[in-house]
Amino acid sequence: MKLEIKQETLIEHLNYVIKGISNKNLRPILNCIKFVLDDNGLYLMSTDNEIAIKTFIDKKDIEKIENTGEIVVAGKYIYDIIKKLPHEIISLEEVIGSKLYITTPNTAFTLNCSNPLEFPDLELEYNKNPIILNQKLFKTMINQTAFATSTGESRPVLTGINFKISENIMQCTATDSYRLAIKKITLNESVNENINIIIPTKHLNELVKLLTEDEEDMEIHIFTNKVIFKFNQITMLTRLINGTYPDTSKLIPETFELGIKVNLTDFYNAIDRASLLTNESDKNTIKLESKENIIVISSNIPEIGNVEETIMVEKDNETEIKIAFSSKFMLDALRVLESTDMKLFFNGELKPIIIKNPESDDLIQLILPIRTY
Amino acid sequence: MKLEIKQETLIEHLNYVIKGISNKNLRPILNCIKFVLDDNGLYLMSTDNEIAIKTFIDKKDIEKIENTGEIVVAGKYIYDIIKKLPHEIISLEEVIGSKLYITTPNTAFTLNCSNPLEFPDLELEYNKNPIILNQKLFKTMINQTAFATSTGESRPVLTGINFKISENIMQCTATDSYRLAIKKITLNESVNENINIIIPTKHLNELVKLLTEDEEDMEIHIFTNKVIFKFNQITMLTRLINGTYPDTSKLIPETFELGIKVNLTDFYNAIDRASLLTNESDKNTIKLESKENIIVISSNIPEIGNVEETIMVEKDNETEIKIAFSSKFMLDALRVLESTDMKLFFNGELKPIIIKNPESDDLIQLILPIRTY
Repeated sequence: MKLEIKQETLIEHLNYVIKGISNKNLRPILNCIKFVLDDNGLYLMSTDNEIAIKTFIDKKDIEKIENTGEIVVAGKYIYDIIKKLPHEIISLEEVIGSKLYITTPNTAFTLNCSNPLEFPDLELEYNKNPIILNQKLFKTMINQTAFATSTGESRPVLTGINFKISENIMQCTATDSYRLAIKKITLNESVNENINIIIPTKHLNELVKLLTEDEEDMEIHIFTNKVIFKFNQITMLTRLINGTYPDTSKLIPETFELGIKVNLTDFYNAIDRASLLTNESDKNTIKLESKENIIVISSNIPEIGNVEETIMVEKDNETEIKIAFSSKFMLDALRVLESTDMKLFFNGELKPIIIKNPESDDLIQLILPIRTY
Repeated sequence: MKLEIKQETLIEHLNYVIKGISNKNLRPILNCIKFVLDDNGLYLMSTDNEIAIKTFIDKKDIEKIENTGEIVVAGKYIYDIIKKLPHEIISLEEVIGSKLYITTPNTAFTLNCSNPLEFPDLELEYNKNPIILNQKLFKTMINQTAFATSTGESRPVLTGINFKISENIMQCTATDSYRLAIKKITLNESVNENINIIIPTKHLNELVKLLTEDEEDMEIHIFTNKVIFKFNQITMLTRLINGTYPDTSKLIPETFELGIKVNLTDFYNAIDRASLLTNESDKNTIKLESKENIIVISSNIPEIGNVEETIMVEKDNETEIKIAFSSKFMLDALRVLESTDMKLFFNGELKPIIIKNPESDDLIQLILPIRTY
């Protein structure tokens, strides 16, 4: 293998594949990046057996291809080295003794390589009819649900996001059993058979970092035990979580005793300030109480002091509510709303609080109240 | 105490005094900020017994002073609360039962206060003839030496910066016994008696954050066991470290076998890249070898690979050098140089390396070599 390539081009693509290696892996080959150079261009690959990432640099973006070939090299080292090289043309050459020789006019690195035959197969495959989706929309979908995922290990299925696809509706659900976020989007084309899978949230968070902000599409290829995302020049595989995701369809009530409309920023800032006088040991409890056309948010730490925040609201009816909840969970929920106003729905102080954009049911969030009164 | 003040004004000054409390202090009163409002304005004070900070807000920057008085309140809480309040006018009022009532139109915090009589005296006092110094110059002086301070606890005197003042020369010295940085500046006025004190580096680093980047002066008031800095509206006290600072005056040789002039950025980048193939367990050792008008920087980790960097240099004479040193210490030293070119001086592979700006002796740095050849 021998080629010349611009530093900027190579580091851009190393930035993608570096996310596929963990550095903590006990099998050294899984901490490596594989380079495959053929007449079409350069492929870079990484895998830690849970995820796999492959990216492609077209030959038109490579200065010179002298010899095709394959090498496998320590991921962290090649990444750090290329990152610190100047914005010049870099020469990469496989030399005798299974070494990679990396040079610019004043710099010469020699890195030991591993046997390409030992590098695992990435198991990338593709469906004939993948799901096609706007990248930015998918990114929003993950960002609006991922935070509600459980971080504990006790129920593995809750460490992922549940994707259900039926006809042309894709629904993402995340919950840690204290709060829930459900996001629905409409696909351009219907799927042939219903899909119900759980994708690890930590891998989706890595995927989201690779997606672009523009309006380009991505492909989603779903298999029994894995899902493969294809976008730009990148292909990413992640294993699925085995198990049955809890049925959350009955958790969102059909009717509510009271709906309250409030300015999102005002409500966020009030909760944010009131959260200063809450304790994690006390579940960050704050109270909300409605009084005609205002709500009062309050909290206290007895040794320190107390706070009361007042906000003007629009109520659906004259029912009043007095309820307590975690300020942390409420702030997490508010952060992903993309609207000027928001709506809160209540069925008394013991039933879940529902949080929505007033104009749309695409994103529905639920927070369990805390019993204090 | 009762006043109205702009949020921006109050948070600016709380930003200063918050640096004087540690939050980890076992005496709760030392985690507090004292407010003293008199007819001149508002004083804010904090201390953890090792340092003390006082700042002053002139009455012209206060919207309304209704009642003068004193209160003492939990520093972390008042700071976080004021920081999260909107850019509005805030009312602060001491209310019955030793409480502080903090309000804006929609927000009302009540914080429990401590007894102002229990708040320690800050022991601020002033000399008739303080040392007068440009703030920016002092900041540079600390930044160019502080990194060489020891972080270990075994020799407490080395955890501070040694200030020696004689006539109109102020000299700062920091060393961890493997490297040394000495910075000299000229004062506008001579001191009457020689000064030789050790100021804790961690407190100087806090002080540096409070200094402005403009050309304003500061006052330094030195006493037997403390030093007091006065600048802008801020007064900061720090205790001195007891003990005798090692005599470093004989460590910098008068003559050198070889001087090498090199472009600072080129040299920095070469060392930075070569440091990728060094290990902390191996003292981050890299090698430098001169060959006529070039130097070669090299390093290796046997399992991973090796690197050679080549740089054009100007040598004083035809002596050649082959020496090894810590890349980490060299990078630290290079980062504080403020010049395009730099000079390295050698007296063979076993003697200290001296690092300087070629045009000036204001800052002299020394790094011990590592014996490898």
